[in-house]
Amino acid sequence: MSKNIERIAVLTSGGDAPGMNAAIRSVVRSGIYFGKQMFGISQGYQGMINNEITPLNSKSVSNIVQRGGTILKTARCMAFKTPEGRKTAYENLKHHKIDALIVIGGDGTFTGAEIFSREYNMPVIGIPGTIDNDLFGTDFTIGFDTANNTVIEAIDKIRDTAASHDRLFFVEVMGRDAGHIALWSAIGGGAEAVLIPEKETHIDDLVEKLMVDLKNQKTSSIVIVAEGDHGGGAFKIAEKVKERFNYDTKVSILGHLQRGGSPTSFDRVLASRLGQAAVEGILKGKNRKMVGIISNRIEFTDLTLAIKNQIEVDESLIDLVNILAI
Amino acid sequence: MSKNIERIAVLTSGGDAPGMNAAIRSVVRSGIYFGKQMFGISQGYQGMINNEITPLNSKSVSNIVQRGGTILKTARCMAFKTPEGRKTAYENLKHHKIDALIVIGGDGTFTGAEIFSREYNMPVIGIPGTIDNDLFGTDFTIGFDTANNTVIEAIDKIRDTAASHDRLFFVEVMGRDAGHIALWSAIGGGAEAVLIPEKETHIDDLVEKLMVDLKNQKTSSIVIVAEGDHGGGAFKIAEKVKERFNYDTKVSILGHLQRGGSPTSFDRVLASRLGQAAVEGILKGKNRKMVGIISNRIEFTDLTLAIKNQIEVDESLIDLVNILAI
Amino acid sequence: MSKNIERIAVLTSGGDAPGMNAAIRSVVRSGIYFGKQMFGISQGYQGMINNEITPLNSKSVSNIVQRGGTILKTARCMAFKTPEGRKTAYENLKHHKIDALIVIGGDGTFTGAEIFSREYNMPVIGIPGTIDNDLFGTDFTIGFDTANNTVIEAIDKIRDTAASHDRLFFVEVMGRDAGHIALWSAIGGGAEAVLIPEKETHIDDLVEKLMVDLKNQKTSSIVIVAEGDHGGGAFKIAEKVKERFNYDTKVSILGHLQRGGSPTSFDRVLASRLGQAAVEGILKGKNRKMVGIISNRIEFTDLTLAIKNQIEVDESLIDLVNILAI
Amino acid sequence: MSKNIERIAVLTSGGDAPGMNAAIRSVVRSGIYFGKQMFGISQGYQGMINNEITPLNSKSVSNIVQRGGTILKTARCMAFKTPEGRKTAYENLKHHKIDALIVIGGDGTFTGAEIFSREYNMPVIGIPGTIDNDLFGTDFTIGFDTANNTVIEAIDKIRDTAASHDRLFFVEVMGRDAGHIALWSAIGGGAEAVLIPEKETHIDDLVEKLMVDLKNQKTSSIVIVAEGDHGGGAFKIAEKVKERFNYDTKVSILGHLQRGGSPTSFDRVLASRLGQAAVEGILKGKNRKMVGIISNRIEFTDLTLAIKNQIEVDESLIDLVNILAI
Repeated sequence: MSKNIERIAVLTSGGDAPGMNAAIRSVVRSGIYFGKQMFGISQGYQGMINNEITPLNSKSVSNIVQRGGTILKTARCMAFKTPEGRKTAYENLKHHKIDALIVIGGDGTFTGAEIFSREYNMPVIGIPGTIDNDLFGTDFTIGFDTANNTVIEAIDKIRDTAASHDRLFFVEVMGRDAGHIALWSAIGGGAEAVLIPEKETHIDDLVEKLMVDLKNQKTSSIVIVAEGDHGGGAFKIAEKVKERFNYDTKVSILGHLQRGGSPTSFDRVLASRLGQAAVEGILKGKNRKMVGIISNRIEFTDLTLAIKNQIEVDESLIDLVNILAI
Repeated sequence: MSKNIERIAVLTSGGDAPGMNAAIRSVVRSGIYFGKQMFGISQGYQGMINNEITPLNSKSVSNIVQRGGTILKTARCMAFKTPEGRKTAYENLKHHKIDALIVIGGDGTFTGAEIFSREYNMPVIGIPGTIDNDLFGTDFTIGFDTANNTVIEAIDKIRDTAASHDRLFFVEVMGRDAGHIALWSAIGGGAEAVLIPEKETHIDDLVEKLMVDLKNQKTSSIVIVAEGDHGGGAFKIAEKVKERFNYDTKVSILGHLQRGGSPTSFDRVLASRLGQAAVEGILKGKNRKMVGIISNRIEFTDLTLAIKNQIEVDESLIDLVNILAI
Repeated sequence: MSKNIERIAVLTSGGDAPGMNAAIRSVVRSGIYFGKQMFGISQGYQGMINNEITPLNSKSVSNIVQRGGTILKTARCMAFKTPEGRKTAYENLKHHKIDALIVIGGDGTFTGAEIFSREYNMPVIGIPGTIDNDLFGTDFTIGFDTANNTVIEAIDKIRDTAASHDRLFFVEVMGRDAGHIALWSAIGGGAEAVLIPEKETHIDDLVEKLMVDLKNQKTSSIVIVAEGDHGGGAFKIAEKVKERFNYDTKVSILGHLQRGGSPTSFDRVLASRLGQAAVEGILKGKNRKMVGIISNRIEFTDLTLAIKNQIEVDESLIDLVNILAI
Repeated sequence: MSKNIERIAVLTSGGDAPGMNAAIRSVVRSGIYFGKQMFGISQGYQGMINNEITPLNSKSVSNIVQRGGTILKTARCMAFKTPEGRKTAYENLKHHKIDALIVIGGDGTFTGAEIFSREYNMPVIGIPGTIDNDLFGTDFTIGFDTANNTVIEAIDKIRDTAASHDRLFFVEVMGRDAGHIALWSAIGGGAEAVLIPEKETHIDDLVEKLMVDLKNQKTSSIVIVAEGDHGGGAFKIAEKVKERFNYDTKVSILGHLQRGGSPTSFDRVLASRLGQAAVEGILKGKNRKMVGIISNRIEFTDLTLAIKNQIEVDESLIDLVNILAI
């Protein structure tokens, strides 16, 4: 292990995701386990610029493994995109004698970390923390599983009332650019159809499918709509369907509740494993890598690769939605 | 007990509510316990008109106490508002030799039952099954508690992400005419403000309150909006607030998921007690009454009173929201 | 309102109950709302003796309405049963110029408060916080509803596997002296039988009931056992049943998980209302009273009455279990 | 695709696992999608011998994706271990003109399927359905994720009360031969220690660890015990610890509730994917294979390999528990 790294700082950045706290806890305790001094940076890169850097000990992270959100808070930071911002940030790290950085977030977070690490020769490891599951180099990102469970619990409730009446429900879920949550929750929720940004939306096809269902005496239907779908969100699509088709339609916009909640077992274990591996990796000299889990084993991927090679939506899952909805 | 009542039918009508299945189960098993023959009518009054009436035994209602929705399904029925519709309904009951009727629903359901009972001298007892909690003669209606829990679970998730960012969240909950769910979930959810149909909405007051919070370094705020609020729903109010106040606002429209879900302990026990009491009441000769629970004791109230004297919103609860939000 | 009370302290004592934090939050914010200075005492009466008394402001209680346990911690305290202990406690209160005391707990907590208040002329109000629901003067105690929901969620899961196999399950729930949780969860969980401390346990009757079920092709059965049942707990009863009856039996001992968990809507609203009412009551000169809710209205009861007149188990609920299990 | 396979039967066998219904639904609908006739066998191999074989259509499996347990029920079957039993079973399949078999279960289920397939030249595919996660050839088995979530929800509740008092809690979880659930839930639940069948249990080491915690003012501790641990279960270990160490200890035996509950998103999607892949596999001529998912891709493994090469417990996870508990 590298002898030079004695003080490690951790931050969360970008959109928050359930399991970030479990990752922070694991980073901090793993660092302490290996005899290092650990620091937390508040508000992501903004806190690095504002010098919001404080030491963390084992107790600082007790009783948080089950908490949603992030105790370090997170923010989007424009200043870190400027050389001046990064310079100030570096000086603050230097002032605290921070030798290495662990950043928890998504592609925006990693892009900033990559540039910063090269500019100032600061070792950095990224931990994939985003509900969107859109990073290459890991089977899953932290928060995706919890978000999926939040969505299917909502769908399960809607199905109860759907089965008691004869109705068509549209449920809008998160995913501005990526349809992963929509697709997984459509399968897990037993939805009749799913609309995602990666696919063109044909209202006519949707209406036709719903008409066939009705003819086959399916008395209720649930359609999942990713917020970034080209049809323009659940309310607009519901209106368009109504124009062609006389059906009692109802809309739920789940919104930001999908970012919250106590993390699932899967996200907690994933976050705990990645936190420990990030610390071990950085102590072994790894740099500008994202740590991920592939087939239950820890793998490191270049940050540049993790960002560029976004996971494409799995066509077989789209087919599966259609098969299961017959 | 009355010797004349041998065959009792049960139906659910109006909007569905979690706990209706627990009530059906209790009605059926209590009837069987007292040696009666029990029948279920599908789709509410519509099924009475369409002659969808089938015998139910103990097994028909096994494994449903925990299920949301209603196994008897529910529908709104225009035909039952006509004398012809009710005549057909009565003939179908007569055909099955039904001696008495137990109806589970809200004010619309009870209005129909009241008229029908007078017209055809049919003994009827109402069980209050509605998430709106807007009936007189019972401390709680079946489904209200489950709906409240669904809403506060959503708010808890939103608070996680709210506490990680600095944001203002609007959550729209059910309640076209009544603010009970909004009020209870504002208290239970720790919201900063609540907007309900029973009170005029003053956007300026809301903005002022939010500005004070911001000055006091409350870094995030949650506002609950009942769908029937005069401000026009969460999206419109969020826009109006944004006009006056530069804040990152987010909106969730919970929608029909509030009608579903496995009923809570409270709703299951309430429904089970009311189901039994309805059967005992009708066998003891009670008629055109709603069965309710007041301070843990069974009470019967005239259907006409139950409907007309809607529970007014408790002013002390509105005050409590304001006190707790300081 | 009394002009003399300016500084109010709050504590939690005895077994913890979900909703205690919501009550603390409401006490503190209501006090601040009325312009008073608020203090928290850690570890119940033990902390009063140890002088663990600190000021609380509005932020001290933010983001806790949804948390199980109690941020003030709780302990059982032998020293407070001695005059010396209470004298030290009083001197500490005097040192902090505390004018009045709000105690959250059950009968033990109230007994101590009653004696202390008389000895030192200290105004005191009790808030009923105990999962056992065994106090007179309130329809419900804080925590009872959450505990019931925890138990029925466990039973729901057991029923899934029970329905897939042919088996007999014994679930042991809390209740050393009181069968309220057992009784409510037996009704809400759809159990076949319930054994509680308030009733003698006849294994032969239980076996007979289970044999009838088996003959009627009920393929699985769940029996709820209160820990204080005279039969000696779920394991012993399961063994005795097995001796008489060849059935594949399984046992779950839920244990202390019944004291935890995020409080339900009902417990949060109850706790919030009682917290506010306790503060208003004490400012209006009430003393040595427990604040409760009866039929949705606030009521005050003498502490001595609240303790002595334990809610007796409702015989009609025992009958209801038997009716619903046919 | 094979032209010969027109009629496919599916069964569940062994211990039930959440997600089995989602797998059944996917098998049935995928088969129908490919134009095949689908059949369900009740009670596992016992139903095959008893000729409990019925056709299933799309509606037969509607509204079950979210249900725990298995609608086909499951049983352990001694008769299928005999040549006579299997002969009867085969004749029943032949009578219904079943061309291929899909079995959902664990190692016992697959062992029977392997022998039967060879004896009667019956194409068979296995789907890994067991909460134990002890099969080779898949990253996860159906039900493991749900069981883990059930356990950590229980631990979260216990932690609430643990943090309010100073106590030591022992939680016994499932795992007669495998410590996977114990290990995952110890990490996800933030436990101080874990005892599993794969490792010798040294009470002295455990006591020493707990004493160090106490000295470091960790005021509460949770220890996870797999039921198959050599120390003899949570009650016995709690007693042994008490002998050496004066601590207020409490025990929860979670029991069979770990087999139930609505399956998680992860288990529903896993089950849905494996169900479809099993049907596609058998139609493409695969035989005596288990279908699994490795790094998000479908993989087939010989049944004999899947059984023999049980997943060994991952030593790095044991280390992780210790690191996180400092």
